Amino acid sequence: MLTHFDKDGKAIMVDVTEKKETLREAVASGKIYMNEETFKRVKEGTVEKGDVLGVARVAGIMGAKKTSELIPMCHPLLLTGIKLEMILYSEELYIEVRSIVKVNGQTGVEMEGLTAVSVALLTIYDMCKAMDKKMYITDIKLCRKTGGKSGEFINE
Amino acid sequence: MLTHFDKDGKAIMVDVTEKKETLREAVASGKIYMNEETFKRVKEGTVEKGDVLGVARVAGIMGAKKTSELIPMCHPLLLTGIKLEMILYSEELYIEVRSIVKVNGQTGVEMEGLTAVSVALLTIYDMCKAMDKKMYITDIKLCRKTGGKSGEFINE
Amino acid sequence: MLTHFDKDGKAIMVDVTEKKETLREAVASGKIYMNEETFKRVKEGTVEKGDVLGVARVAGIMGAKKTSELIPMCHPLLLTGIKLEMILYSEELYIEVRSIVKVNGQTGVEMEGLTAVSVALLTIYDMCKAMDKKMYITDIKLCRKTGGKSGEFINE
Amino acid sequence: MLTHFDKDGKAIMVDVTEKKETLREAVASGKIYMNEETFKRVKEGTVEKGDVLGVARVAGIMGAKKTSELIPMCHPLLLTGIKLEMILYSEELYIEVRSIVKVNGQTGVEMEGLTAVSVALLTIYDMCKAMDKKMYITDIKLCRKTGGKSGEFINE
Amino acid sequence: MLTHFDKDGKAIMVDVTEKKETLREAVASGKIYMNEETFKRVKEGTVEKGDVLGVARVAGIMGAKKTSELIPMCHPLLLTGIKLEMILYSEELYIEVRSIVKVNGQTGVEMEGLTAVSVALLTIYDMCKAMDKKMYITDIKLCRKTGGKSGEFINE
Amino acid sequence: MLTHFDKDGKAIMVDVTEKKETLREAVASGKIYMNEETFKRVKEGTVEKGDVLGVARVAGIMGAKKTSELIPMCHPLLLTGIKLEMILYSEELYIEVRSIVKVNGQTGVEMEGLTAVSVALLTIYDMCKAMDKKMYITDIKLCRKTGGKSGEFINE
Repeated sequence: MLTHFDKDGKAIMVDVTEKKETLREAVASGKIYMNEETFKRVKEGTVEKGDVLGVARVAGIMGAKKTSELIPMCHPLLLTGIKLEMILYSEELYIEVRSIVKVNGQTGVEMEGLTAVSVALLTIYDMCKAMDKKMYITDIKLCRKTGGKSGEFINE
Repeated sequence: MLTHFDKDGKAIMVDVTEKKETLREAVASGKIYMNEETFKRVKEGTVEKGDVLGVARVAGIMGAKKTSELIPMCHPLLLTGIKLEMILYSEELYIEVRSIVKVNGQTGVEMEGLTAVSVALLTIYDMCKAMDKKMYITDIKLCRKTGGKSGEFINE
Repeated sequence: MLTHFDKDGKAIMVDVTEKKETLREAVASGKIYMNEETFKRVKEGTVEKGDVLGVARVAGIMGAKKTSELIPMCHPLLLTGIKLEMILYSEELYIEVRSIVKVNGQTGVEMEGLTAVSVALLTIYDMCKAMDKKMYITDIKLCRKTGGKSGEFINE
Repeated sequence: MLTHFDKDGKAIMVDVTEKKETLREAVASGKIYMNEETFKRVKEGTVEKGDVLGVARVAGIMGAKKTSELIPMCHPLLLTGIKLEMILYSEELYIEVRSIVKVNGQTGVEMEGLTAVSVALLTIYDMCKAMDKKMYITDIKLCRKTGGKSGEFINE
Repeated sequence: MLTHFDKDGKAIMVDVTEKKETLREAVASGKIYMNEETFKRVKEGTVEKGDVLGVARVAGIMGAKKTSELIPMCHPLLLTGIKLEMILYSEELYIEVRSIVKVNGQTGVEMEGLTAVSVALLTIYDMCKAMDKKMYITDIKLCRKTGGKSGEFINE
Repeated sequence: MLTHFDKDGKAIMVDVTEKKETLREAVASGKIYMNEETFKRVKEGTVEKGDVLGVARVAGIMGAKKTSELIPMCHPLLLTGIKLEMILYSEELYIEVRSIVKVNGQTGVEMEGLTAVSVALLTIYDMCKAMDKKMYITDIKLCRKTGGKSGEFINE
């Protein structure tokens, strides 16, 4: 059932007026692959100069707050916590971005989590594209979701 | 060389004041995988009810226009054309989103193209997540880029 | 009494801190008139190609979420539902846009409803203006309002 | 011909890359009707306390700058001038808002002019709605347009 | 303790999920100094023509609503009241802007108050800069804060 | 002469249609004072954990791009370069933020430079306010401006 449409197939922002306000949390993740030289520069950058991941973290947090502006049928929400983790896989040459988003609200924060991850990954691409235009972003997915009527969801 | 940092490693919006204004174009793409039932509903939806891809297309076009708000070091640009194509792969159960973005400007539109694709894919996720939370977004990449000093780039 | 000004006539965002949070709903509507040829194309478009009304519906929903950014003294609100209906009057050659907006909040959603209608109508104008620049938008009004201290309002 | 769709009927932001940059100007207008008591208060307000029209003018100017964010297929433009006039018709009890918008650009500024008028009128509604919920906004139209390939348009 | 970072020093939007929603209020202020001629024009302007302070007041109120978009780690909040006062010091040739912001929320509104003041002062600068480019903005500070766990704060 | 008003004293976005597009640059600066303990933490933070200044730099750059959304009568501009410097004065216990903004445009970038500085300073306040609520922001001013009809301006 595609809930974002009414019975005539017209797009709507689903009516959640009657849903209970509960604590909801979502964990999402995604990856960006790059060549070795670029990976090395990002990794060093986090330590001493050119903090790519620091900028991407800020962008991801600010992006999460813009979710309902970007995704047409998303409800506005007062996010109560946003955290982004970056994990560097030196052998496989990718960076994983992982977001944890929280809210006391009437709808879940899956989209906010996925948007945070996407914007952070795009920012990494932007800041490294002068070195490597073949980077690619992949495996953006919802990892876990708690709260709300549908209960816990774990994407193992 | 990470161009988005100055010589001391501080993030900057790169100075492109002296760059020539030329016609630039970028093609980017990405995919979203989903289960069979959901894929079928999206496919039918485009025909007769619940136009998921129509909403995603609008979201992607509007998202492209927000790129410099989302990606911290991106220059604002007056995009002169944005087009999104959605291709359904019924066997493999994924939808490919492909963007073509154009500008007469001093910097390229790779990020605008990648952002258009990302926002369109996130919108598809949002509109189908009631049916399938395990969808995943993958293979977001720059396909082609023309114009500017660095000339043509093709990501075969 | 113009409530959006303090006792010295200075504009303020009215203090609603002490108002009760209740379920509030607003219905608003407006029309756009166009020539016969254009009307016909929009009507067909909704069926088979060039979905003007589909794009306008998305724009109206996203516009409702931007109300407090557009109208200086409007309070930000967490809208819980937005729905837009388009009705085609083939004889009179106009399209009516009707919005239903809901919230659990401390102020009403009249402005959100009126903004949704206005943005949807402007989008129809934009998408048809190559055919007909003489279209005009008219009769934007609040139809109904429930919830809040002032109770029900019906604009018959 | 609905230019905002490609040959398959999919919405696009029209490619204006090859269009010439010329000086373009648009004049748009619209009206809001209200009851006598409210009209009187607005009129006095402009003189001595509670400057409804001053706030609406600022909102309209800021709204014009948001046009490409609100209207999905609108091109971003660097507006070079925005002016709003408010004319009070004491006998007929309506206020006319008139906008003049200019740009050196590749597309016209009709939508910017119409958006400025719409946002200003909505702001007047907002600031007076405590007194009169039956106000209505009407006759929003393009009055004149110059520049660009299609030349002058006058909506007499 | 810099609360906007996690234990590894990475920037986060602090988790306030468990904090109680209480009535919170902040008063902030700031000043802009200008030359005598400019001050005189602004002062007259408020009375009869060219209402610099009226425009700045609108800008400050709208700016307060944008705080969580501007300040990366700020939580979105549903402000329930915003008021700006402008006080003219004719002898010292400065204008003081004072904001009072209210919310029922889980975090304080210091940043909203300070942002309102900053944007209003920048707007005064903008509108007068053709006369006096040496104006300067100074003494932006939090004056008072009530509500929340930390209780009342008064900056005497 | 207050240029942001027409001859009747109504606010306008000044018509710059006929002005020449030239290379324009602005340097602006401002300071934030804090107590010793906080200053020490910020200073250390830049080296090893809790990069307050890195986050503020990103916020300032993004803030500059939002100038025409915040300041009502500001023209939108395609900024071609934004750079922020932070200088720590350990004895006097303040941090100076200095912005350099560039554009090829029809109006100057004073406001963009001042906005970048203001938003960066507000971000520092936000990230340190748990330690020190008495910080204050001061001496925000235009330092230098080149390009445009009025030529060079130096605020010694």
